[in-house]
Amino acid sequence: MKYALLIAYDGTAYGGWQIQHNAVTVQEKLTCSLEQVLGFKVNVTASGRTDSGVHAAAQVCCFEADCTVPPERMADALNVYLPDDIRVLQSAEAPKGFDAVTSAKKKTYCYRVYFSKRSNPLKDRYAVNIKFDIDIDKLNFIAKKFEGEHDFKAYCASGSQVKTTVRKIYSVEVKTRDFRGSRDVEIYVTGNGFLYNMVRTLAGTMLDFAAGRLGEQDIINSLEKGDRNSVGKTMPPQGLTLESVDYGIKLF
Amino acid sequence: MKYALLIAYDGTAYGGWQIQHNAVTVQEKLTCSLEQVLGFKVNVTASGRTDSGVHAAAQVCCFEADCTVPPERMADALNVYLPDDIRVLQSAEAPKGFDAVTSAKKKTYCYRVYFSKRSNPLKDRYAVNIKFDIDIDKLNFIAKKFEGEHDFKAYCASGSQVKTTVRKIYSVEVKTRDFRGSRDVEIYVTGNGFLYNMVRTLAGTMLDFAAGRLGEQDIINSLEKGDRNSVGKTMPPQGLTLESVDYGIKLF
Repeated sequence: MKYALLIAYDGTAYGGWQIQHNAVTVQEKLTCSLEQVLGFKVNVTASGRTDSGVHAAAQVCCFEADCTVPPERMADALNVYLPDDIRVLQSAEAPKGFDAVTSAKKKTYCYRVYFSKRSNPLKDRYAVNIKFDIDIDKLNFIAKKFEGEHDFKAYCASGSQVKTTVRKIYSVEVKTRDFRGSRDVEIYVTGNGFLYNMVRTLAGTMLDFAAGRLGEQDIINSLEKGDRNSVGKTMPPQGLTLESVDYGIKLF
Repeated sequence: MKYALLIAYDGTAYGGWQIQHNAVTVQEKLTCSLEQVLGFKVNVTASGRTDSGVHAAAQVCCFEADCTVPPERMADALNVYLPDDIRVLQSAEAPKGFDAVTSAKKKTYCYRVYFSKRSNPLKDRYAVNIKFDIDIDKLNFIAKKFEGEHDFKAYCASGSQVKTTVRKIYSVEVKTRDFRGSRDVEIYVTGNGFLYNMVRTLAGTMLDFAAGRLGEQDIINSLEKGDRNSVGKTMPPQGLTLESVDYGIKLF
């Protein structure tokens, strides 16, 4: 049977999703917990990798196993063995032919920042402190320029190997609120896929534009000519959360 | 000169505000950092103690020191030495006769919970997972019963020594939102002072009432007769945050 899992994790302590030699990862913790439940090792895949320190509110994973655990009970069985900062929220039988990576239609990431002269320990775990001022109207204006199909070559970390750097962005939404003495800004980006570091570089570019450090022509150059010098800095991982993965069907 | 500080801390790693033998505390970290800045030891007091694991978004502290650091620069000076989970947000010269404890007019605490069958690592740091269902209308209804001046003897942890258990509650507000697949509920309580564990027991009692485990007569008995058997359980510390302290004047 193929099982699908909806999982959430606080990425602070992990070297990202994918198993690697030099860091403890979410995939490793999940694989070990699955082995405890099943009694044998299986390969578990996720909708996509998240980088070191990046969080997930709703990552989707799947694995195939010849076992008798009812699909809806797999979540609680795994949670017995998982550390507190990784939880299976839902489990179900995956539809025929389901693949966590290739079946994904849309993903939504959120990048969170807050604006204040000094950092705030109650915000720092899931957002990044920005000390410079920005123009929220400019942030909203530039958000719309990224919507549509573009070549995001300039927003991709160098060294990554992908067939194409063209991605379709369905929406870029900015939400703001004043909370605990400073302004919180959330940038929600929904697309059909994302390049390595793309959302973090997109957030950095949008913030630099809203701070007046980049002009509209820079953004146009970055999208039309793939000009790396026209983009802002790649923002730190703790501000980024994978919010949802849409498969066009109800999984859980 | 007397200095006033506005500080925020993530209480997860601390045994509360007050210095003690068996745990690392916020007051200890602040006292050590002050000694680094000043070159000598001073006594720093806060508006009130927070318990082990409780957070503060805006705790107010003060201390007296014969030194040349300009009041508005004390915040950055202290932040050099403080750990990341404690930050001075603002610093200023305290008004004549100011006392962080006795000058406080109102304090606001917030207790946060979220309702879902399984816990969520992205919510667990500052809120408590509740697995049973409640009636939000009943929660709003009972909130109002606590407003006004009452003897909160039944809501005070046994063994605490205070002159009077009468406190005035200015408001109890319930805020809800659906976020990341579960309902978040915040209970804001503003009063002229709070007994040991009072807000956590108040939150537990309100939730038990809204779940149908306590009746209206229980709440009346708890307030009118001080009946300890009529109150709910004391909720865990991580859901509680000291949100603000009001001195009736602008300090920062």
